Amino acid sequence: MSDLNSGFSLGLVGVGKIARDQHLPAIAATTNCHLIAAADPKASLPDVPVYGALGAMLDAHPDITAVSICTPTHLRYSQARLALLRGKHVLLEKPPGATLSEVESLISLAAEQGVSLFAAWHSRFAPGVAQAKKWLVERQVQRVKIEWKEDVRVWHPGQTWIWQPGGMGVFDPGINALSIATVILPQPFFLRQARLLVPSNAQTPIAADLSFADPTGVEIEAAFDFRQSGPPIWDIHIDTDGGRLSLTQGGCRLEIDGQLVNEAEEREYPELYARFAELIASGISEVDVAPLRQVADAFLYGRREVTDAFIE
Amino acid sequence: MSDLNSGFSLGLVGVGKIARDQHLPAIAATTNCHLIAAADPKASLPDVPVYGALGAMLDAHPDITAVSICTPTHLRYSQARLALLRGKHVLLEKPPGATLSEVESLISLAAEQGVSLFAAWHSRFAPGVAQAKKWLVERQVQRVKIEWKEDVRVWHPGQTWIWQPGGMGVFDPGINALSIATVILPQPFFLRQARLLVPSNAQTPIAADLSFADPTGVEIEAAFDFRQSGPPIWDIHIDTDGGRLSLTQGGCRLEIDGQLVNEAEEREYPELYARFAELIASGISEVDVAPLRQVADAFLYGRREVTDAFIE
Repeated sequence: MSDLNSGFSLGLVGVGKIARDQHLPAIAATTNCHLIAAADPKASLPDVPVYGALGAMLDAHPDITAVSICTPTHLRYSQARLALLRGKHVLLEKPPGATLSEVESLISLAAEQGVSLFAAWHSRFAPGVAQAKKWLVERQVQRVKIEWKEDVRVWHPGQTWIWQPGGMGVFDPGINALSIATVILPQPFFLRQARLLVPSNAQTPIAADLSFADPTGVEIEAAFDFRQSGPPIWDIHIDTDGGRLSLTQGGCRLEIDGQLVNEAEEREYPELYARFAELIASGISEVDVAPLRQVADAFLYGRREVTDAFIE
Repeated sequence: MSDLNSGFSLGLVGVGKIARDQHLPAIAATTNCHLIAAADPKASLPDVPVYGALGAMLDAHPDITAVSICTPTHLRYSQARLALLRGKHVLLEKPPGATLSEVESLISLAAEQGVSLFAAWHSRFAPGVAQAKKWLVERQVQRVKIEWKEDVRVWHPGQTWIWQPGGMGVFDPGINALSIATVILPQPFFLRQARLLVPSNAQTPIAADLSFADPTGVEIEAAFDFRQSGPPIWDIHIDTDGGRLSLTQGGCRLEIDGQLVNEAEEREYPELYARFAELIASGISEVDVAPLRQVADAFLYGRREVTDAFIE
C-alpha cells in the first residue's frame, strides 16, 4: 500500500468534451492527483504537454503512475491494455468498454498486473446516492419508477456517434440511471421486457421503455427518452414499506416521503478522482459491469420498433 | 462430497423437442441419473408422472435432488430460482437465460444455497473439442475462421420464437460455435465489428458477420447464416505456428494439417449428464457466461441491416 498523501501522477488520454468539462477541473481540485501530461492526436492544453499517442506520453513520462481514459468507447480497450501492460493504474470513463467481453479481459489483466482498474460510473457519486443506498438497505422495496428524459439536441449537440453501433442512443444517459439503480437497490434486478424505439436513420434507440423485476418479483419500470422538450427529468422514485424515496435531479436531491433530506450541488468528478486515489492507495480495482450488462441485455432482449428519422 | 456411484434423482422441466430428442435418451443412458418425474403443462411421458408445474413436481417427489430445465428461455430464470431455493441442483439448457443479469443472479443464489448450477453448453462435449483445446494450448494462434451455416427451414421448422426478442435468430445455433471457440482458444476474444442481417418481419438476425480480436491482435472471423441450402456447415479452422487445426461437423471431426485425428459420433448430451453428475458429486457449479456475453455484445455493438422478409 503506497502512501495516499504523496499523491499520484496522472496522464489524461483523450482531451475531448468530457475531459475539458469534467476531468480537468476535477483533477485540478484533487490535491493528491498531479496531471503531468495528456495524449490526444488533435488537442493542446495550456499547462501540460500533449502527445499524439498514449505510448509516446508514457515513454516521455515514466513517472506517470495512472492514466484516465476519456477517448471514444471503441478506442478504450487497446489503450487500457497498453497502460495496464506498462503497470499503470487505469480509470475508464463510462461505459468501461464497447463490449462486455473486452471489459472482462481488462479486469483479468489488471489483476495479473497488480494495478488498479476503476470503471468510473460518475452518477454513483451524485450527492444523494450514498444516503439513498443506506436508507434502502433497511427497507422492503415495493415498486421502482425511473424516468430519465432529456433533449438530445441540448445535451448531445452534434454527437452523431451516439446513433452509431456502440453509441447506445438514449442508453448513453440511461446507463447513468442504471448505474444508480444497480448500486442503491438492495436486490439485483433483470429485464423482463423492453421496447426500443429506433429512428429510421439510426442504429440506436431514441427512447426505451424497460420493465425489470427483482428476484422477489418487485417491479422496476424505466422510461428513457431523448425527445424531451423543456428541462430534463432525471428521477428515481422508490416505494418501500417505510415510505417513498425520491432521488431526483440526477441524484442531487433526495426526498423521503416528500421531506427534503439532502440537496447539494453535484461534484461527481472530484469524488470520482478521490475514489480513484483511494483505490490506488489500497491496491484494489473497482469494475462493476452491472450497468453495461443491463444495457447489453436490453439490446439482446428488447423489441425494436422503427420510429421517425432523427434530424438534428 | 456425496457418493457419485449412488447416483441422483432427476426431475425434467419442460418436455419439448430438445427434451425428447436429446435429454430423455441421454438420461436413460446415464446409469447414475434416475429420472423420477417431469413437469410440463401439456406433455405426458410413458414411464414417469408429468406434473403441470415444477412446484407440484417437487412437492410430490421430495426425493428429487436435481432438475434439468429445458423450457423456453424466458421461463428458465423463475424455474431455476424456485428449484435452487428448494435446494435442488440445476442444469440449464443453453442459453442459460434470456439475459445475462438473470444468470448472474442465479450464480449467486446457487452459491448461497450450496448446490450445483450447470450451464450446459452441449457443443463443448462434441468429440473433437477437448483434444482441440489441448492441442491449441501449446500453439500460437494466428488466425481463426468460423463458419456456422444451416437451413433454418430444415433445422428449426415452425420455431417462430427464434425470430422474436430473446430468440436470438441465427445466434441460436451460432452460440454453439461461440461456446466451442470460447473454450478451445487459449486467449479470450472480443468483438471488433459485426453486421447483423435482420429480416424485415423479424426481430432477430438471419445472418451475421462477426470480426473478433484477441488481446494480441489475432483476428477471429465468424460467419453465421440461416439461409444455407444443402448440408449444414459447422466448421472452425484455426491457423497456428504449428499448423492448421480444423474442427468440423459441429466438433465431431478433428483434422490437423489435413490429417484426420479424431472422428466420432457425437454423444454430447450423455457427456453433459455425466458432467452434471460430477459437478453434483463434487459440490461445484459450472456456469460460463462467455458465449451468451458474446451474443449480447453482438446485439449491443453490431450494425443492423434490414433484409428480405423471412417466409417459412
